[in-house]
Amino acid sequence: MAILTTRLTRVLNIRYPIVSAPMAFAGGGALAAAVSRAGGLGLIGGGYGDAGWLKEQFNAAGDARVGVGFITWSLRKSPSLLTDVLKRRPAAVMLSFGDPRPFVDEIRAAGAALICQCQDMHHVKDALLVGADVVVAQGAEAGGHGASRATLTLLPEAADFIAARAPATLLLAAGGIADGRGLAAALMLGGDGVLVGTRLWASNEALVKERHHAAIVASSGDDTLRTRVPDIARQLAWPKEFTARIHRNAFADRWHGREQELERSAAIEGPRYALAFTEGDPDNTGVWFGEAAGLIHAIEPAAAIVERMVTEARLRLESYGGAALA
Amino acid sequence: MAILTTRLTRVLNIRYPIVSAPMAFAGGGALAAAVSRAGGLGLIGGGYGDAGWLKEQFNAAGDARVGVGFITWSLRKSPSLLTDVLKRRPAAVMLSFGDPRPFVDEIRAAGAALICQCQDMHHVKDALLVGADVVVAQGAEAGGHGASRATLTLLPEAADFIAARAPATLLLAAGGIADGRGLAAALMLGGDGVLVGTRLWASNEALVKERHHAAIVASSGDDTLRTRVPDIARQLAWPKEFTARIHRNAFADRWHGREQELERSAAIEGPRYALAFTEGDPDNTGVWFGEAAGLIHAIEPAAAIVERMVTEARLRLESYGGAALA
Repeated sequence: MAILTTRLTRVLNIRYPIVSAPMAFAGGGALAAAVSRAGGLGLIGGGYGDAGWLKEQFNAAGDARVGVGFITWSLRKSPSLLTDVLKRRPAAVMLSFGDPRPFVDEIRAAGAALICQCQDMHHVKDALLVGADVVVAQGAEAGGHGASRATLTLLPEAADFIAARAPATLLLAAGGIADGRGLAAALMLGGDGVLVGTRLWASNEALVKERHHAAIVASSGDDTLRTRVPDIARQLAWPKEFTARIHRNAFADRWHGREQELERSAAIEGPRYALAFTEGDPDNTGVWFGEAAGLIHAIEPAAAIVERMVTEARLRLESYGGAALA
Repeated sequence: MAILTTRLTRVLNIRYPIVSAPMAFAGGGALAAAVSRAGGLGLIGGGYGDAGWLKEQFNAAGDARVGVGFITWSLRKSPSLLTDVLKRRPAAVMLSFGDPRPFVDEIRAAGAALICQCQDMHHVKDALLVGADVVVAQGAEAGGHGASRATLTLLPEAADFIAARAPATLLLAAGGIADGRGLAAALMLGGDGVLVGTRLWASNEALVKERHHAAIVASSGDDTLRTRVPDIARQLAWPKEFTARIHRNAFADRWHGREQELERSAAIEGPRYALAFTEGDPDNTGVWFGEAAGLIHAIEPAAAIVERMVTEARLRLESYGGAALA
């Protein structure tokens, strides 16, 4: 078993500096538990407020030590979700996409680590103001919701800001990290570890339909885009600053650039989107993966993904990425 | 003097794996020469076809061993620029933004290394087809022209593709790399070195007006955007797939999202843009820097920038980015 420890592993009491992204719908209890058992920290995706689903997923995680993540603006509409979940003693709660302030005290009182995911420097400032234990710098390469900054520049800029103001705060990189090279790069850029979405979406434990999985295996990183169309189809009130990165499939091609028309057609297109999603149709719904698709060639068990990321990162680090320094 | 060598330094016969981006207008002979004398390889920016300017810049580079870069679609309109420049025996010629095929034989016959800058995997395939000596994987974080893929995912995907098909081809990362952390990360991701634009734009030797330099020092990485507005104002026929990352200043705010209106006003706005650019007005013209702005806090000599990048990269590499592997 490989060893790769950082400040993050010591503070969160985990073996590897790898946290799974709390992906709505895809990031259930089985995935979170598998990541935690493999040495990382798995986060269940809180999604859009389905208390029953969330309860099931915590049950599915069994005795594994996991955390949970919420879409902050959505959580404001059903804050009891958080109260319920905190009774399950999550190791960490991640808040993303909205003002964390209404939830911070409750999370802290429950003894969970507070993780704030940030898409720009304003978010990083806000995260330090609420005393986040962990800041996630999420770049636009990420699958699913995000904004426009790239991980490669946001991460070191956040690292400098944190080092000057709250140096005990931990920092994770998210967006575009799918293998040991990405983990090693995140460490070079000032991260204490990584938050992994797309690569774990492409795992056996993720709650993802088979033909959606087939789509990522067949895709290059060129085959995604950032767009509002899945949120318009679903009539979800996402704040304007956030878009979704999804597969550039027939659904995305049909509607991207025709957002107003889609808005007017949502009564028809919404149910069509939902049905295709439920049925695992890869063409007529949002298929939620990021630019790291081009680095993913098979659907594998989460434990194998985590273990290989660490082994590969060690190899890259030990060889200085092929450079000679002497 | 720090040591950091890779395949790139051996093949190009340079001390450090750092190449300066051939930035139009800003990347003149003084900057290219300073980068080469500091141990990297400086590239003069071929720009939009001003033979006199290009001649002056080669003269300014003096006896330094430098290269040159062209905007490929623009070079097609005045191919004699390349013929003239090759008489100066450039160490390398970089082609970006267009089909390299019409120019490859002439570059090769002159004994210059052929560098092809790529913004997606289609470009990488094309670069290998023409037998590029060096592929540059340029992410959207870059200042100036580029496309939508992020460096963090494009670089390792390109590395895998090249390793399988043309493993002797060298690979550089471009976009978002401004310090030793970025250089070290590029090595982890499979790069043999880096192409640096924005950080060297913010150097004493760059042909950049003082108030434009002041704007980058005052900016966070949040303060840029990708847009077509400077190209519309200048009536430049940029292919649709490429946009420009510039400072989010008054000019960008005024016109971004109102592209058709700007097109109709180009007869007035074009000269206004050009005058403001020439005068160094930071508000009413394109100010050309990328997301790495948030990592740049001073205008410095290029040699100091290059030397510190290497020293910092060594420190990050030698410490495994703060991770413990034992």
